[in-house]
Amino acid sequence: MSENTNHQILLVARPEGGVREDCFRREAAARPEPGPGEVLIRVIYLSLDPAMRGWISEAPNYREALPLDSVMIGFTVGQIAASRHPNYAVGEVVLGRQGWREWALSDGGDLHRKLDPSEAPISTALHVLGHTGLTAYLGLAEVGQPKAGETVMVSTAAGAVGSMVGQIARLKGCRAVGLTGSDEKAALCRDDFGYDAAINYRTAQDLGAAIAAACPQGIDVYFDNVGGPISDAVLERINVGARIIVCGTMGIPDGGPGEPPPPGPRPNRQLLIKRARMEGFLVLDHQARLDRLPAELVAWVRDGKLAYREDVVEGLENAPQALLRLLAGGNRGKMLVRVGHEVV
Amino acid sequence: MSENTNHQILLVARPEGGVREDCFRREAAARPEPGPGEVLIRVIYLSLDPAMRGWISEAPNYREALPLDSVMIGFTVGQIAASRHPNYAVGEVVLGRQGWREWALSDGGDLHRKLDPSEAPISTALHVLGHTGLTAYLGLAEVGQPKAGETVMVSTAAGAVGSMVGQIARLKGCRAVGLTGSDEKAALCRDDFGYDAAINYRTAQDLGAAIAAACPQGIDVYFDNVGGPISDAVLERINVGARIIVCGTMGIPDGGPGEPPPPGPRPNRQLLIKRARMEGFLVLDHQARLDRLPAELVAWVRDGKLAYREDVVEGLENAPQALLRLLAGGNRGKMLVRVGHEVV
Repeated sequence: MSENTNHQILLVARPEGGVREDCFRREAAARPEPGPGEVLIRVIYLSLDPAMRGWISEAPNYREALPLDSVMIGFTVGQIAASRHPNYAVGEVVLGRQGWREWALSDGGDLHRKLDPSEAPISTALHVLGHTGLTAYLGLAEVGQPKAGETVMVSTAAGAVGSMVGQIARLKGCRAVGLTGSDEKAALCRDDFGYDAAINYRTAQDLGAAIAAACPQGIDVYFDNVGGPISDAVLERINVGARIIVCGTMGIPDGGPGEPPPPGPRPNRQLLIKRARMEGFLVLDHQARLDRLPAELVAWVRDGKLAYREDVVEGLENAPQALLRLLAGGNRGKMLVRVGHEVV
Repeated sequence: MSENTNHQILLVARPEGGVREDCFRREAAARPEPGPGEVLIRVIYLSLDPAMRGWISEAPNYREALPLDSVMIGFTVGQIAASRHPNYAVGEVVLGRQGWREWALSDGGDLHRKLDPSEAPISTALHVLGHTGLTAYLGLAEVGQPKAGETVMVSTAAGAVGSMVGQIARLKGCRAVGLTGSDEKAALCRDDFGYDAAINYRTAQDLGAAIAAACPQGIDVYFDNVGGPISDAVLERINVGARIIVCGTMGIPDGGPGEPPPPGPRPNRQLLIKRARMEGFLVLDHQARLDRLPAELVAWVRDGKLAYREDVVEGLENAPQALLRLLAGGNRGKMLVRVGHEVV
């Protein structure tokens, strides 16, 4: 991180057919100075998230696609380096949306809350005490409505959201079963995140049989971060009245340029037979909860009841590569980029 | 209808690749005599329903497939012809599940309620005041939750369920738009059932554009009786927070023998982007409501606020052919078979 230069990464091409490193370009600008009512923020951590694929795609989405040649957007933890805003003092640490850059100006509109570094590591505001934690907590509670004794299946079970869902399901008295893409992650699910069972879908000889064996009572709640063939296999084994939280679609491949994604089995018949519900959940609808987190969630983190793993990449210049690794399922915990260092 | 012979129709083959007339065989048995606690029922009307395709298929379903060489099942209106049951008197008319036969014995377990012929035509107990009316009423209310001013899209809009949904949506203050398979039915939707707009999906040059034109405010509720390509086009035009009632899947073709149905676009991404819900609704879960109908529904029928059409085929022997016509979308209103005549 430079003190006088502001390195930033721009989106310069759409990810048709898949996100590539050359969708991004790094450039150096001058470090800006805050005007009246503004703060200058030193970015410390940048959060990388699977949803970024959608944010930069022109395909229909829940928000306008980021315009080309804009600084790439993202959640950040930063520190106030200079302040001309009455509510923020130099040295304070904030959760915000400063994007892929080293320095950012803000009038406070894109800041969520101040962090107390003595309470929890500041990076947790980007996962267990941030939007991934909220996604897991609210998605499971509001759409999934798990009841004690039910079976909760989770895809990308070792991921930032998935690992939380599994643990919360257990805290709610459910059987938690995870789907993940390597033996290492499956072990992580069982050993660190307390899943009752975890399946490596890449090596399972018969995925359907493996799911059936891990879910002897069927599946009541499916927290789905992927979609695609893995989820097709889960859908075949849901119980009557099942709830499916559609939280991510990373497992549905992009189509070629101008092409739709490849087709798959339609879920209608299974939803009808099982009187099941499939519902999209988007934490951005609940953004205000980032400022006032659910008390139960905060208490679990304070009491050490929610384990988490971080996969921290050093240096903003490595963000595009890290995003690709995340989208390919190669991360080991919540993917963060360390952009700068706190000044004490 | 014979007085001493009991013609009945058996299921003799599974409808692999589609229902065929030779899935059924007609046979003549002796008219049975009621034992103690039993009644003999003269079947008057038999209801034919799209769900019958599922009832006779071996594919996974919400109920056990009807065993081969059994009398085909179905809802009926019949008259008590002889009674050794204390609760039923000769001449009374009942809604029940007597199946594809002229005469049936019952201990009362498969009878839903007695009908008052002075209140409404007895055939209405098989549609507007029966399970199709309940399907429309409860499916729309419980899953669809329409609010005044919203747009409700209905597939098989002129059908037994669809025509009710459109009318109920209008009674609830919604814009009702129908999808149907002929110009004649589209006119029926507009003229008889009060839809604000109706689209013939077979002749629409660009179905998506036709849907968009008929739904300038987008689609908030989709009551889906078909699935398949028509519904794919609807799904592309739903609003944020839309509710999709999966009530039938007639538009998803059968696969060949041992083959899955053809694939289609996966809805996951659209459900996520729109935070929309897709949920199966099966009126059989609410069968007890056949005995105590929603008061609002009964009042609407009494007050003439719900128009209906019947497509009555004469003679039990024509039931298989009529079912095929129904499944091909060739019916003109609720499909009924007149099996016998009331004895006054």
